[in-house]
Amino acid sequence: MPNSSQLLSVLDHIDADFDNSLARLFALLRIKSISADSAFANDCKMAAEHLAKDIATLGFAAAVRATAGHPAILATSNGKGSARPHVLFYGHYDVQPVDPLDLWHRPPFEPAVTDHADGRKIIVARGAEDDKGQLMTFVEACRAWKSVTGSLPLDITMVIEGEEEIGSKNFVPFLEANSNALKADFALVCDTGMWDRDTPAITTSLRGLVYDEVRIHAANRDLHSGIFGGGAQNPIRVLTRILGSLHDDQGRITLPGFYDGVKDLPPDILAQWKTLNLTPESFLKPIGLSIPAGEKDRLLIEQISSRPTCDINGIVGGYTGEGSKTVIPAQASAKISFRLVEGQDPAKIRKAFRDYVIARLPGDCRAEFVDHSSAPAIALDWNMKPLAAARRALTEEWGKEAVLMGSGASIPIVADFKKTLGLDTVLVGFGLDDDNIHSPNEKYDLKSFHKGIRSWARILAAFADAPAR
Amino acid sequence: MPNSSQLLSVLDHIDADFDNSLARLFALLRIKSISADSAFANDCKMAAEHLAKDIATLGFAAAVRATAGHPAILATSNGKGSARPHVLFYGHYDVQPVDPLDLWHRPPFEPAVTDHADGRKIIVARGAEDDKGQLMTFVEACRAWKSVTGSLPLDITMVIEGEEEIGSKNFVPFLEANSNALKADFALVCDTGMWDRDTPAITTSLRGLVYDEVRIHAANRDLHSGIFGGGAQNPIRVLTRILGSLHDDQGRITLPGFYDGVKDLPPDILAQWKTLNLTPESFLKPIGLSIPAGEKDRLLIEQISSRPTCDINGIVGGYTGEGSKTVIPAQASAKISFRLVEGQDPAKIRKAFRDYVIARLPGDCRAEFVDHSSAPAIALDWNMKPLAAARRALTEEWGKEAVLMGSGASIPIVADFKKTLGLDTVLVGFGLDDDNIHSPNEKYDLKSFHKGIRSWARILAAFADAPAR
Repeated sequence: MPNSSQLLSVLDHIDADFDNSLARLFALLRIKSISADSAFANDCKMAAEHLAKDIATLGFAAAVRATAGHPAILATSNGKGSARPHVLFYGHYDVQPVDPLDLWHRPPFEPAVTDHADGRKIIVARGAEDDKGQLMTFVEACRAWKSVTGSLPLDITMVIEGEEEIGSKNFVPFLEANSNALKADFALVCDTGMWDRDTPAITTSLRGLVYDEVRIHAANRDLHSGIFGGGAQNPIRVLTRILGSLHDDQGRITLPGFYDGVKDLPPDILAQWKTLNLTPESFLKPIGLSIPAGEKDRLLIEQISSRPTCDINGIVGGYTGEGSKTVIPAQASAKISFRLVEGQDPAKIRKAFRDYVIARLPGDCRAEFVDHSSAPAIALDWNMKPLAAARRALTEEWGKEAVLMGSGASIPIVADFKKTLGLDTVLVGFGLDDDNIHSPNEKYDLKSFHKGIRSWARILAAFADAPAR
Repeated sequence: MPNSSQLLSVLDHIDADFDNSLARLFALLRIKSISADSAFANDCKMAAEHLAKDIATLGFAAAVRATAGHPAILATSNGKGSARPHVLFYGHYDVQPVDPLDLWHRPPFEPAVTDHADGRKIIVARGAEDDKGQLMTFVEACRAWKSVTGSLPLDITMVIEGEEEIGSKNFVPFLEANSNALKADFALVCDTGMWDRDTPAITTSLRGLVYDEVRIHAANRDLHSGIFGGGAQNPIRVLTRILGSLHDDQGRITLPGFYDGVKDLPPDILAQWKTLNLTPESFLKPIGLSIPAGEKDRLLIEQISSRPTCDINGIVGGYTGEGSKTVIPAQASAKISFRLVEGQDPAKIRKAFRDYVIARLPGDCRAEFVDHSSAPAIALDWNMKPLAAARRALTEEWGKEAVLMGSGASIPIVADFKKTLGLDTVLVGFGLDDDNIHSPNEKYDLKSFHKGIRSWARILAAFADAPAR
């Protein structure tokens, strides 16, 4: 067990070595590890090799491991103490595509520390937060423990994947095939956010996700709208008619059975959430909006974290270039995702969506579907013991009580850890709502990166002191 | 006036010289004169120069004339006889964009004669029909008259523009500025079709066009659908909801006032059209469809020629690449066009559309519009005298009575000829419904090109013999 003077030395070392931590993060950020686009497959491999090599310097047996897709990294700390707690840390090195590139203020893979408009120092790059910046807070905390004390304060296995942004389809079989090597007392994930920039948080619920793509086919070729207009069906008309009816005037989703099994929040949690005072002014104004877009009879905080959603993430059909073209296209397509909450079955939601589309197709059109990903919602046990230790450590670092919150985002791997490895997960992260993850100009506050490293150093010490389960 | 033995010599010459006619068409087809894309501006200039030089060899004073956009060609036949009829011929050298390029079976600007699946010989290239192939039928007929008789049988002015596919915005001021040089008895346009591949036609009505683009703006940046989904408005949701409601269940367009002023067909014309027997089997089956998409209480032939339409020609928003991205985009846009019929005012229709969009916008979204083009419908006088002469000549060439028909497409220049120059227009063309104009694999039947040239040779003789007005 570490003593408190060791922890203080580790924290001092983190402060002294911070410029080097930043340089190591930048080296990772320069690698274009976009998992969605096969043109970047080799960059994904490079990112995995880079990380494995770095983690091996911290006293881990670390290796790049092949999957059916982009590779994963598996690293096990040496010198296991039989009685020590053992955690499984998870992160992902893959990042989202960068388009529309013209909206970036800097090249997305040339990281820099710049000044935010309000004076904050920020790290700008694709992946600065999600998830390279976040995972490096943990790696750097391990490095500091190793540098100062010569060892880690507890046993750690790290598993870092390269397909989180595209649904982890090949990573889950990897977990199953390596379940022995991944044994631990519980899992840690650093891919979530703070409550606000001064208030740390632990995420205790996550929405699930069903992501589907639909392509409507009409004529066997593109048509001239003068010759055929009026007589020939237009697949964009069919697609907009179907997608435009997915929400009713009250902001509710119209798929039959969509809300089956969805429960209201327990009154005590709803009461706590009300005190957090998330308002359109605080949450929507920074992104240029003012009117909550979800169900009209729900609080905004419910709309974004405890209620299911439907979003059209992309749509394309016909002529989209400069000028005009009088075309009736042969096909049109859209990518649609549903955020799910506890009680909803992803398979049923996907089927309800596809049935809905098919029921509305004209008799001479057809629909094709692509299943992009699927994960149920997660509700973690608010009373698990490592949670209390992590909360205490976070509160000490930030000087403010760590909030237990629900997240609107999906981290499907948490369900897989439970199902495949039998592990509960503690979700701690240092992202902020204005980090522009998945958007142009992604950033990570320099403070998030610095105090994130310090937070993990404290959390590792707290876990070493606490009962594991 | 030409005598009938002269006409027979001209027709023989056309047959004998046909391979050279084809080579001259190919030379024009090789020029990438895409007017919608500014990257091809120089190709448009090259096409104009090429044509002017060629037409000058036929006894025309021909010149490339600048406009505020792509240049036009103005050519006047020499040796005017004071009592001879004088026609103004119009065509356009610009072509539609070629995307999606991967659906072409051959490079679009490398013309070739190939075999259609049913054995017809066809000329395949972008512009093979629209309008390079069509305008060259007229140029080659002039060439034959000049070669055989040393002169043209009547006075001809040619005006050929380079912006027909993008709305002729700069060509109309050109007409106004050159109205003296464009004086004639009536106008000829070769940009329309036959009734079927054996039956020639003269087009006596044309639908108008309003082409608008709308862009919906929501948040000030792209958002992560996990963090913001449910709370933040999605502009694709807004756009699909609006566009998806533009048609009702009966196939009628829902814009308030859209059908104001639209008249039913006269009973005698409707009776004639019924005898033409245009069926879903004959018209829709070749394009892979079976169900007329227009107003359910109208004949298919009305839906495509005498009824107004609304088509979404393009839509784009969010992530449309490979795989998936959980984004709520900042904006989404669509290109929408309305085909108009006699009685509809383009300005009112555009305003009705924009009002409709704005009325349905959430309070924190905004819409931007781009006016791409606008033209009223045209109804020509079925009793104008040159029409009878042209009809007689076509009937002689094809051995089948030429049909007087309504076209669903728009040729806005016809209204401008009337308004600016006081001229009625005779619309004769040799296109077929399966020519794939504005689509990949555009073609022109070799028979259309050959007999088109012969048809114009006969029509010019018939005009020379007939009273001009």
